[in-house]
Formats: sequence, structure tokens, C-alpha cells
Amino acid sequence: MSEDRNKILEETIKRLLRRGAITNLQKIVNKTHAADLSVVFRNLSVNSQRKLFDMIVDYEQRAVLLSELSEYTFTDFIETIEVEELLDVFDHMPADDVADLIADLPPEKADAVLEKMKTEESEEVEDLLSYDDDTAGGIMVPDFVALSEENTAREAIESLQKDFPDVEMPFYLYVVDEHERLVGVVSLRQLVVVKPGTPLRDFMTTDIFSVKTDMDQEEVAKIVARYDILAVPVVDDNNRLMGIVTVDDVIDIFRQEATEDMLKMAGVGEEFVETQSVVSSTRIRLPWLFASCIGGILAFFIIGHFENTLKQVTYLAAFLPVIMGMGGNIGTQSSTIVVRGLATGRLVADDLRNVVCKELCIGMILGIIYGGLIALAAQIRFGAELNTAMLAVSVGLAVLSSMSIAALVGSLVPMVFGRINIDPAVATGPFVTTSIDIISVYCYFKIATQLLGL
Amino acid sequence: MSEDRNKILEETIKRLLRRGAITNLQKIVNKTHAADLSVVFRNLSVNSQRKLFDMIVDYEQRAVLLSELSEYTFTDFIETIEVEELLDVFDHMPADDVADLIADLPPEKADAVLEKMKTEESEEVEDLLSYDDDTAGGIMVPDFVALSEENTAREAIESLQKDFPDVEMPFYLYVVDEHERLVGVVSLRQLVVVKPGTPLRDFMTTDIFSVKTDMDQEEVAKIVARYDILAVPVVDDNNRLMGIVTVDDVIDIFRQEATEDMLKMAGVGEEFVETQSVVSSTRIRLPWLFASCIGGILAFFIIGHFENTLKQVTYLAAFLPVIMGMGGNIGTQSSTIVVRGLATGRLVADDLRNVVCKELCIGMILGIIYGGLIALAAQIRFGAELNTAMLAVSVGLAVLSSMSIAALVGSLVPMVFGRINIDPAVATGPFVTTSIDIISVYCYFKIATQLLGL
Repeated sequence: MSEDRNKILEETIKRLLRRGAITNLQKIVNKTHAADLSVVFRNLSVNSQRKLFDMIVDYEQRAVLLSELSEYTFTDFIETIEVEELLDVFDHMPADDVADLIADLPPEKADAVLEKMKTEESEEVEDLLSYDDDTAGGIMVPDFVALSEENTAREAIESLQKDFPDVEMPFYLYVVDEHERLVGVVSLRQLVVVKPGTPLRDFMTTDIFSVKTDMDQEEVAKIVARYDILAVPVVDDNNRLMGIVTVDDVIDIFRQEATEDMLKMAGVGEEFVETQSVVSSTRIRLPWLFASCIGGILAFFIIGHFENTLKQVTYLAAFLPVIMGMGGNIGTQSSTIVVRGLATGRLVADDLRNVVCKELCIGMILGIIYGGLIALAAQIRFGAELNTAMLAVSVGLAVLSSMSIAALVGSLVPMVFGRINIDPAVATGPFVTTSIDIISVYCYFKIATQLLGL
Repeated sequence: MSEDRNKILEETIKRLLRRGAITNLQKIVNKTHAADLSVVFRNLSVNSQRKLFDMIVDYEQRAVLLSELSEYTFTDFIETIEVEELLDVFDHMPADDVADLIADLPPEKADAVLEKMKTEESEEVEDLLSYDDDTAGGIMVPDFVALSEENTAREAIESLQKDFPDVEMPFYLYVVDEHERLVGVVSLRQLVVVKPGTPLRDFMTTDIFSVKTDMDQEEVAKIVARYDILAVPVVDDNNRLMGIVTVDDVIDIFRQEATEDMLKMAGVGEEFVETQSVVSSTRIRLPWLFASCIGGILAFFIIGHFENTLKQVTYLAAFLPVIMGMGGNIGTQSSTIVVRGLATGRLVADDLRNVVCKELCIGMILGIIYGGLIALAAQIRFGAELNTAMLAVSVGLAVLSSMSIAALVGSLVPMVFGRINIDPAVATGPFVTTSIDIISVYCYFKIATQLLGL
């Protein structure tokens, strides 16, 4: 539905641009939410982008538009914008988004922007830039409401009006001591419903979920999701309140992490490549296929090694696809279950033995079922010609071993990686698939040579 | 980090259970957030679960625990709980969670619960149960604050204290007309900062994002994420306010949808199977492998068909793994990019031709590069023995065709499914992989027979 709406919006805007219907464009641009405009921007020329951007009257909408652009659209578009203009927009943007965008600017432009910013603001942004991108520090906003526990509810509300007009969504008010250390939290709702004279101390919650600045963003997101809170305070090593991470950022983190995991598992790096040009997209995907190329070349040396076997029973070749296919598919099942299970917390890396044993067990059961089925099919097709049931038996056993190995390797590798804190998703791409292929092929020829007495 | 903490918690609780250290257990259970307890519950016997549950003093925590349990843990555990006890817990739970849990109860128990609920509450829950699980109606909560536009800010705050003590997180107050139709929205923050005598009409926002009760939950989640709002109002066909979907549910939806997509693409159904027994997990995974089994059997009939070719040049078999592997891997790249691109909105189904052409183009470029490389390796290994370069050329062309076909099929199928509103992720599992395998094998033997003049 919203896809259709965007398509219509895009076509309308393109038509009006062609016609040069400025007044109509201005009307549409200022009536449309900047998040929707950012989608349309992807398919416009830089020239048209610039035209539309200048039509946006509200600087907050300009700010939203800039932060919603995909990295690639942003990089091209930003070249048309002067430093001074950029500063005007940054003035209407939360500091974490400013820091993100500055990180994407060409270095000279970034320096120029930081230099010209008001000192206070620039310090805020530089502070944020000093944290690692993927940590609580890198994603927090410094816009929060911090009050002393002596304040009453009435004073807090007054202060909200006077001192913190910029804080966008103050769901929670944080209570700090004289050293800015976090001691309590009060929700806006509580503030409204208690008697105005009550000091914060009397109704604040002291049992607070907080995170350290260097905590990985995925961990932060999990905490917000688990405890259903709208924002989590970020503190430094001395428990001083540095910023908050809000729930809207948490949504982005989860979506981004899921995308990264899927791309890594498919062996396409971790950045989304579809929005890039054919050339750069090819360049990103090229190296990931190298593993499977090397594996394939290795496989033909292995099969070359069994030259004699193959010469005597040509039909052995006919079963390679089914053996590789069954192993490949069950391996993908196992590794996907493990990678996603670890990411969502349904599996924990410490349960290594249980998880892997269970997968192996499932692989063996499914291997017996499908091995039998495929052996039967092989016997029906080739039994008469060969005058022996041993080929069928070999094929069945090869399917069994391929599926068991695939379930074992497919679950073991990501579990081990998870345990030693390497991203399990990386472990599960082409490398694992390729190793399973090679081991399966080798086992197959070994079994056949043995059983057929070649 | 939080994983380690849960592990420690679990071990401590297990140790105390063994020792029967009731007092210590009570202390721990009531100090721990119910969301954390729910994780520990997975690995406890029903008996121990029951013991811990009874120790929880706060009924709200009991409610959180019940709603956080995984479906399988819940099903076993709930058998120990009487209807009356369940009602006491449901009293402390938002209506949408109650509806979700009732849907998971055995039918007799569900009926008994609905019958004994207070009429008003039971109507609320039955209303929710009447919507499809995956729609806005199925996930909304009926707990919202709705006021008339005549009300002043002061009256709104008073009403918040008096009339809506149960509404958990009133970020927004909705303004409705005499027919309960949604006409505006006011944020709690606005309410606090305007002059107390101002009527809502004067500062409410009338440009509201709202969704219909039958909108798919994924669409709802995308709207909340795109516009960075904390809750979206759900209206019926007459624009009457029925409930709201809050941002914490949106997080769950995104995580659930990502998990479902990954599992579907791996061919493991869409429910998470790892938490189930070996037998039921095997049963779920069995049918998904059937496609690849049938495909494999088909492949050996195809190869059998090229019996003559194969008898004359046995070495042809050696290249099957590399041809299938390269095709399989690039096919996975393409389909993952398309499926995730469609899910995150980076790609739209209407762009079918562009996306597929681009993928085909990338597939051909990579096919030329790797085809050349593999042909070279083949010539080095087998060139001397065979006295012809034609085998190497055949292999190179087969890799090229396999990779091009894989990129084409891998992107085309999910794009087409997306366009006709079938879930693209389903389209991308074992079916696509298997079809690519079969087409690749056939092309390979066809090319080789032709070029080698067999």
C-alpha cells in the first residue's frame, strides 16, 4: 500500500518537474513527509533533488530528508550543498544524526563544518564522533532532561518548558546527583499525575536499566526490546549520564543487523549493494564467490583422483547433484537456525554441545530417510543396467553422510564463532557451503570405490 | 554480556532449586525482571517453573512472564495453571497480550477463560480475537486516551489522572468527535508545555498517520518506523478510533518478520524450530528437503540421458561440483538481495525489469570472470591428458551460463512473487536453488556434447 503511494508520489513529482510546474511542486513538497520524499529522491537526478530540496520551507523537514537519504544518494547530493547551508540544516537536527552525516561527508567538508559550528554544538558532535559507530556512545543523543532529586514535580514541568525546549520526546526525566551521576528516573506520565509539590526523590525509580558508552549497539537494542522501554540512559565508567538511546534508533538497529546477517550469510558483504552501480556491486560480490571457485577447483582435483573408479562406473557422476544438493540444503537449514537463534537470543553460544548434537541427530534421521528414498530411485533407474545393488547402496550412504556432515558443520561453525565472539553470520556464507560440498564429494567416491570393490 | 548474566541467573536458580533454598529463591525471583525469568524458564522442568511462578508476588510481573514465554514453553506450563489463577494474571495484562495468549490456549480452557472474564473485558478481548493475527487489528491495544476537542489542556491532564489510570504509556492523547471519529492528536509533551486553559482544538495536530484495522502488521510497522512515531492509531472503515499500535510491538514485528524471512529462505518453514524436540523439528524440516530430493533425482535422469557423452569423456563429471557451486552461490546472493531489499523498502516490486536486468548483467560479468578462471584451471589439470582445449572451453561456458541463469532466476522469482503479493521469501528457498541446479547441469552437458562433437 505505502509502496503504491510512493510510486504515485514519484511519478507525480517527475511529471511536474518535466513540466516545470513550480507552484504545484512547492505545494506537494511541503505537504509530503520528508521521509517519503527521501524515497523519491533515490530515482531523481541531482539537479532535480536540489530543486526540490530548496522548495522545502521547514528546516526540520530538510533535516529529516537529509538523515533519511541512503548513503549513496546522500554522497552525490551533498556535493551540491554549501557548508553554510548545511549548517543551517544541522541546526534543526539531533546531534546523533548530525554526527552520522558528518561521518559520511568528504573529510575536507566535514572539517569545515565542524570548524564553523557553534562551539558548544560542535563539541557535542565531536564527542559523539569519538565513539565507535556501532556502540551505545555512537548512537546516543545528548538531548535529555536531567534534574536534581530536590526538584518538585511542578519545578520539573516548568523546567521542561523553560530549560529543555529542544528535547524532542522527553518520555523520561533523569535524576542526577551533584556529579551528574545517574540516580533515578521519572516518567513524564508520573510527573503529570503526582501532586505538584512532590519532590522527584519521593517517586523516582531507582532501579534503572542503563548501558555503558562502549556497549555494542545490538546489545543496547536487545535491552530496550526486552524491557519494553522507550529510551535507555547511556553512562560513562563513573556512571555519569552522557546521553540516551531512543526506541526509534533501536528499530533501525534491529533492521540493519538483520539485513547485515542475511547479506553476510549470502556472501554479499554487509552493506546493501542493490542501490549501487553494476560495477561497484560486481566488485563487492566478486571476492565472496572466490571461496566457492577454489572449492570447486579442489573438487575436480579430488574427482580426478578417483579417475579409475569413475571410468569403470560412469553412472557415479549422475548422483553428484543429488548428493551435493541434499547436503547443501540441510546445511543451510542448520546454519540459518543457529545464526538467527543466536541473534534473537533463542539459542546461547554456551549450549554448543546440545545444539550441535541435536542438529547432527536431525541430520542423521533426515539422511536415513532421504538416503533410502534416493537409493531406491537409483536402483529403479540403474539397477538393471549394472547388475548390482551396490551402486544404489553407495549412493544412499553418501546422501546419509553428506547430510549428517552438513548438519554438523552448518551448526558447529557458527556456534563456535559465536562462542569466541566472531560474528556467526560471516561463518556461514560460501565458506561453509563450499567445505560441505568438498567433504561430501570425497566421502561419496570413497564409499563407492570401497563398496563396488574398484 | 546480557547472555552471560542470564547464564549465571539460570545456574543460580537451578542450584537453589536443587537445594530447596526457598527464601533465597523468593528473593531472587522477585528482584529479577520477569523478561529475564522467562529466558530461564525455557530450561526448567514444569514443576520448577510452577514453583518459581508461585513465588512472584507482583501480579504484573506474573503477567509479563507469561507473555514473554515462548509458545512451546507456554503450552506445557499453562497446563499447571487453573482458570481462576489465569484470570487473576490476565487482570494485570494489556488486552492485546491477553488475546494472544488465549489464542494459544487449548480450546476448552480458552472458552472457560472468556466465559469467566468480566463482561466488559471479555468483549474487548473477543473483539481483538476477531481480527486476523497479523493485522493492525490483531496487534493493537484498546488502551488509549481519547478526549473531545472542547477539553482544555488542564482538563486533559485531570482526565489522565482520573479516567485513564490504566493506560500504560500515554505518549499521545487522541482527539475524537461525537461519533468517536479520530480528528486530531496531542502529545503529552505539548499538553505539559501549553497554557492550562488552551482547548485541545487550538494545538492538536490534525494531519494524522492512522492505519486501518485490516492493514498487514508489517505495513503498520513500516509506517511507525518511517515517521519515527511512538504509536499509530488504528481506525475502522468509518474512521472511528479502535486502538493503537505501540512502538514496542513494532520492534517485535520487525524481528519476527526478519526471522520468518530467513527461515523461509532456508526452507525451514517459518516458525522457529530449534526450541522444539528432535522429532517435531525433523518433521518440520522434512518436506522442505523434498524439493531438492526430487530435483536431484531429476538430475540423475538428465545425466543418464547424456550417458554416451559421459562414457567418452569421463572427466566431465569432475566439473559438476564447480558448476553447481558457482551457480548456487550467486543465486543465493541475488535472491537474498532481492528478498531483503523488498522487505526493507530499498527495492520496490514495480522495478522488476531494472532489478532483474541489473542482476543478470552482474551475473554475466562475474560469469565471464570466473568462467575464464575455471576454464584455465581445467586446461592446466586436464589439457595434456585430453589433447583438446574444447573441454576447458565447455566448462568455462557452462560456468558462465550457470551463473547468468542463477542470477536471473534468483532475482526474477522473488520479484515476480513480490509483485503478485506472494511472500518473496517463500519463493527463494530450496525450490529456486534446485531449479537452478537442474538447468545448470542440463546446459553443461548440452554445451559439452556440442563442442566436443560427441
